[in-house]
Amino acid sequence: MIANPLFWFIPFASILALAFAWMFFKQMMKADEGTDTMKKIAQHVRVGAMSYLRQQYKVVIIVFVVLAIFFSILAYGLGVQNGWVPFAFLTGGFFSGLAGFFGMKTATYASARTANAARESLNSGLQVAFRSGAVMGLVVVGLGLLDISLWYIVLNYFVDEIDSAHKLIVITTTMLTFGMGASTQALFARVGGGIYTKAADVGADLVGKVEAGIPEDDPRNPATIADNVGDNVGDVAGMGADLYESYCGSILATAALGASAFLTAGEELQFKAVIAPMLIAAVGIVLSIIGIFLVKTKEGATMKDLLGSLGFGVNVSSVLIAIATFGIMYILDMPNWHLISLSVVVGLAVGIIIGKSTEYYTSHSFKPTQRIAESAETGPATVIISGIGMGMVSTAIPVLAVVAGITFAYLFASGFDFSNISMGLYGIGIAAVGMLSTLGITLATDAYGPIADNAGGNAEMSHLGPEVRKRTDALDSLGNTTAATGKGFAIGSAALTALALLASYIEELKIGMVRLLEQGRQIPALISENLTVEQVKYATIENFMDWFDVNLMNYKVLVGVFLGSMMAFLFSGLTMNAVGRAAQKMVEEVRRQFREIKGILEGEAEPDYARCVEISTRGAQLEMIFPSALAIIIPIITGVVFGVSGVMGLLIGGLGSGFVLAVFMANAGGAWDNAKKYIEEGNMGGKGSAAHKAAVTGDTVGDPFKDTAGPSLNILIKLMSMVSIVMAGLTVAFSVL
Amino acid sequence: MIANPLFWFIPFASILALAFAWMFFKQMMKADEGTDTMKKIAQHVRVGAMSYLRQQYKVVIIVFVVLAIFFSILAYGLGVQNGWVPFAFLTGGFFSGLAGFFGMKTATYASARTANAARESLNSGLQVAFRSGAVMGLVVVGLGLLDISLWYIVLNYFVDEIDSAHKLIVITTTMLTFGMGASTQALFARVGGGIYTKAADVGADLVGKVEAGIPEDDPRNPATIADNVGDNVGDVAGMGADLYESYCGSILATAALGASAFLTAGEELQFKAVIAPMLIAAVGIVLSIIGIFLVKTKEGATMKDLLGSLGFGVNVSSVLIAIATFGIMYILDMPNWHLISLSVVVGLAVGIIIGKSTEYYTSHSFKPTQRIAESAETGPATVIISGIGMGMVSTAIPVLAVVAGITFAYLFASGFDFSNISMGLYGIGIAAVGMLSTLGITLATDAYGPIADNAGGNAEMSHLGPEVRKRTDALDSLGNTTAATGKGFAIGSAALTALALLASYIEELKIGMVRLLEQGRQIPALISENLTVEQVKYATIENFMDWFDVNLMNYKVLVGVFLGSMMAFLFSGLTMNAVGRAAQKMVEEVRRQFREIKGILEGEAEPDYARCVEISTRGAQLEMIFPSALAIIIPIITGVVFGVSGVMGLLIGGLGSGFVLAVFMANAGGAWDNAKKYIEEGNMGGKGSAAHKAAVTGDTVGDPFKDTAGPSLNILIKLMSMVSIVMAGLTVAFSVL
Repeated sequence: MIANPLFWFIPFASILALAFAWMFFKQMMKADEGTDTMKKIAQHVRVGAMSYLRQQYKVVIIVFVVLAIFFSILAYGLGVQNGWVPFAFLTGGFFSGLAGFFGMKTATYASARTANAARESLNSGLQVAFRSGAVMGLVVVGLGLLDISLWYIVLNYFVDEIDSAHKLIVITTTMLTFGMGASTQALFARVGGGIYTKAADVGADLVGKVEAGIPEDDPRNPATIADNVGDNVGDVAGMGADLYESYCGSILATAALGASAFLTAGEELQFKAVIAPMLIAAVGIVLSIIGIFLVKTKEGATMKDLLGSLGFGVNVSSVLIAIATFGIMYILDMPNWHLISLSVVVGLAVGIIIGKSTEYYTSHSFKPTQRIAESAETGPATVIISGIGMGMVSTAIPVLAVVAGITFAYLFASGFDFSNISMGLYGIGIAAVGMLSTLGITLATDAYGPIADNAGGNAEMSHLGPEVRKRTDALDSLGNTTAATGKGFAIGSAALTALALLASYIEELKIGMVRLLEQGRQIPALISENLTVEQVKYATIENFMDWFDVNLMNYKVLVGVFLGSMMAFLFSGLTMNAVGRAAQKMVEEVRRQFREIKGILEGEAEPDYARCVEISTRGAQLEMIFPSALAIIIPIITGVVFGVSGVMGLLIGGLGSGFVLAVFMANAGGAWDNAKKYIEEGNMGGKGSAAHKAAVTGDTVGDPFKDTAGPSLNILIKLMSMVSIVMAGLTVAFSVL
Repeated sequence: MIANPLFWFIPFASILALAFAWMFFKQMMKADEGTDTMKKIAQHVRVGAMSYLRQQYKVVIIVFVVLAIFFSILAYGLGVQNGWVPFAFLTGGFFSGLAGFFGMKTATYASARTANAARESLNSGLQVAFRSGAVMGLVVVGLGLLDISLWYIVLNYFVDEIDSAHKLIVITTTMLTFGMGASTQALFARVGGGIYTKAADVGADLVGKVEAGIPEDDPRNPATIADNVGDNVGDVAGMGADLYESYCGSILATAALGASAFLTAGEELQFKAVIAPMLIAAVGIVLSIIGIFLVKTKEGATMKDLLGSLGFGVNVSSVLIAIATFGIMYILDMPNWHLISLSVVVGLAVGIIIGKSTEYYTSHSFKPTQRIAESAETGPATVIISGIGMGMVSTAIPVLAVVAGITFAYLFASGFDFSNISMGLYGIGIAAVGMLSTLGITLATDAYGPIADNAGGNAEMSHLGPEVRKRTDALDSLGNTTAATGKGFAIGSAALTALALLASYIEELKIGMVRLLEQGRQIPALISENLTVEQVKYATIENFMDWFDVNLMNYKVLVGVFLGSMMAFLFSGLTMNAVGRAAQKMVEEVRRQFREIKGILEGEAEPDYARCVEISTRGAQLEMIFPSALAIIIPIITGVVFGVSGVMGLLIGGLGSGFVLAVFMANAGGAWDNAKKYIEEGNMGGKGSAAHKAAVTGDTVGDPFKDTAGPSLNILIKLMSMVSIVMAGLTVAFSVL
């Protein structure tokens, strides 16, 4: 049975999260949705969003069935994989999908209510929007930890191993593959949602703002509902699935690394190392809930006050988690408990630094974005040049933060003994867990953004008074900043998670090799080594590096690195092109409606919103297939052709390039957006000036940067690791070169 | 003495190259420069270009003096470096600078003569321009091989080693460091030249085309001379220095790899392995000269005919070199001579594939560029989005070509024995040499571009007849295509050269370690290993990988990869911003002249060209310092902090990201340029339409992409390797972590 009663705190915390999510949801639903127009608009958005999600889940189910069959063949046919994998894969996908569904449902119910609450006061608006965002945050962490707890209990009951030390290895490596389900779900949510939202947004802007000269969110624009739907499917459901995956991935990878690092340290300690990341996450949930209750503001609050009140909640949670970590590690009586705790703090710090750097580079309170706005005075070309230049330069701080984070997390956890690789890697994993331990509240601030944005749209379309508009604008503006910070956080956590996954890849190799050897089969790449099962079971990480020649002078590693870098760019390029094509279709449809439906622009006839929603939906579904397939297939092919060393090269090449490219795209996009806002506030000639027009071009280019290609890269770098992990058995069993 | 008389063919070929360069130069100088206006304009450009070069060399001399002192301290003070290094470094820089000087001098004398010859016939114009380009090509390969031969002779005379096998190791690794001089020179030439040319170009376009509505190269535009100067300093001198470095770097790295791979194979064979890359280069010179004589065309030639005639020369050279390689290897009687020859052919093939792919993605005869043109119909934002998307997708073929090239070059040279790493790496090196063996003629086609461009400018400004303009336009248009292909070739060769340099880094480590041990000192990172001099001297590459833990689970390698990826983006961002700032100054100056000097726009007063040249010069000098310093300092810091494994991570991370980023930027830039031309030919509404205006925005953004940031990345990836190579002694003697 389960050895340590502390374990039960983990499912408890997950259920607590779900209970609070339910409570916040109920509270929000009790609020009034406002006037009939407001209700009607909200209804339009809700129907559009749900119909998109239904469509997407249809595609996803097909992909899941195909992959589950494939994994079953690998497991039951070829015997290169654990028999639990197909099931773990399916639940991972199911829970992630569920989280997306709940989060989006809440968001679409919340927008009109937020607008209506804003008619009362700023604080009421903030409360409705933020607590609704908290539903998403708590559902994600709650379902994630619930899935982890359930699988742990099930596998602990069923897995039979000779010694308990290896039982934990088998359990943790099997659970790791459930992340593949979450990854696949996230892939489609991020890529599909990202294409949807920007096809609608770019399409709406190009015809509406640029050609017809009507403002954003104007009800006369047929694409405006699709645009609002896009915020929900991209920024709520997509972001949620992305972080659900990072959350589970980092916990599971760290558990697997812990089981391995403490393999010979005794059953009790090994178990503690496995549950430590889960306990940190569980405590993080409780402290996030406390943080959520701390967020409030008063009427007449400035942007700074609003930011401060959100920041207060997040900061209190972070500090409490840092303190609590020392407590957890002390209670668990881990060796060097204070040093391991420091690794967790390192992770928290990296998250905060990346967030601050994102704010500096994308908020128009600071020089970089103001300079982009200034460059708008010489036209669109200089806006683009300066945005790209600034975006590229802005990658330095996040990379240096991650580099420092890796170094310190490794050094602390290894007790400053460089050669203790498995403990060092455990430290990197637990730093990722530390960074994500505040997810309950940070995701609440993220999901708040699109809710406030939609509330603003609803208020605009329902012609609410200027006072209300001012309040929803303030909420929306705050949402833009939190969204940018959230993106930085999502990328940073994806990078650390991918690193932890990369390290745990070795554990999967080990399991795959043991399975082959136990079946009396050979490992083709290592025939000359004549390995025994015992040798593999107790092999160190260095042994694996030697056996598979995973060094930088192995041409397969070099080839892998090139392929990984290419994947980051190719994948981004494909999603950018997808947005371009889908937006083009939207432009044509809007033009057609302006031409064929008389009286739209005069406000006398209602445009056909549903048709635009349909076009975005179909465009996203169609366009997401190829890049998604590539992200799954390339790691498999690389494994089969270039073996373990090729795969590891691919992962690290993809991670290095992908992380930097993602930061660049997110920051450039965010900065263009806010440079435009800066001009709209009256600088450089203000709205309608030539500079403003140039800045709108920058903003439009930035849309797919920050909301499609950039975020999709988070998924790419994690998914490629996940695919490799699940395929580890296949890679050791067969490889060409 | 020098064992094999075949060696003398190498200096002979280099002198032959210089003799033909001299001949072509004399021929060109005999041609008439045309009317007085033509002479005056050419004079303006010449003076501007030379004054820029003087300024640049002033800065470069300071940098060289500082670095030479630093290297002398390392060598004579700390004893961690060979005493020849400071001198080798200086000559490398000097010869590279000389090549740039001659090439640019020729180009600036050739432009008016080309325009004048075009008054006679298309073929005459082509002959003058192309043969002048050939001066650059031949000077680069001639001086490069001359420097290599001279150093070989000198070192062979002076270096004293106990056994001749290790004498060759010392000679080749010492020579390798002369590449550092070429690298440093190339850095300033590419970065400074790149900033200069685009500051002038963007500045001239923004005010001239967009604000004042006057055509390109109009003499009323004060920045027009600076723009023409820019073509010479960026595309002639910069490109020349870049390829000079690749050329020398690939030959020297391969020689070092050969000396090591054949260490125990006997003196004679080892010597042959060392001179094999030099012989291939030497034969390449002779066959390039033959190819140059084959380029001619007839009156009324279409674009396809012109491309065909250039292609004919290059193709004949390539095929002859492929055949000759088998001959050289056979005469040298290398073991597996036919397989090693195949590695050379692989390199040639990779170059051709990358060139073709560049043509496909950037020429408006093909779909990708036409699609970008189509997207111009919905405004500048969609032009940018589609260009970036296409540029990112276009990285796939070049990466796959390089990946296939690495794999096959490795497999062939190792005789399909994967474990024969040193032979495999020698194969990758010699593939790079193969790719660059046609440099004499390929660089001629590159340098031809800016000459034709300047000729067109000269014809425009001198108001020559429409018939002549048509001819110079045809020549210029051809130049755009060859320039794009040339960029692909420069990037591809930089990638393969950087790989060869990475491999030869191990050789430098070996030398550094032997030096320390012979001085009775310890290698801090390897104290526990207790190595002897003999052990190090005969160590394999695997030994080094083990000793320094250069595997992908070493956190220092991971850190290095992140830093390398960051460097690629940071460096590009800094150069993009530099162009933006320098262009801004140009815009202000041009506006000032239009305002203050009455009658410029009416053609009644002459603008102050010199002032614009000065602004570009000063801007470039100022802006190139920081990114350049970063490129030199970061590898040193990484080495000191993270040691050998950190450095190797940095190099491979920088190479992976840098290569893909460079291809993306070059192709996107080229495609935007040609999309604009496609529209100007009458598509999508033609010149003056809204689509054309949108395409001009794309073109302007593309300028710093393709001519500043992209090409500068070639230097970055090679220079970081070179710095690491030169600093290898320091890295093994001291490192913090």
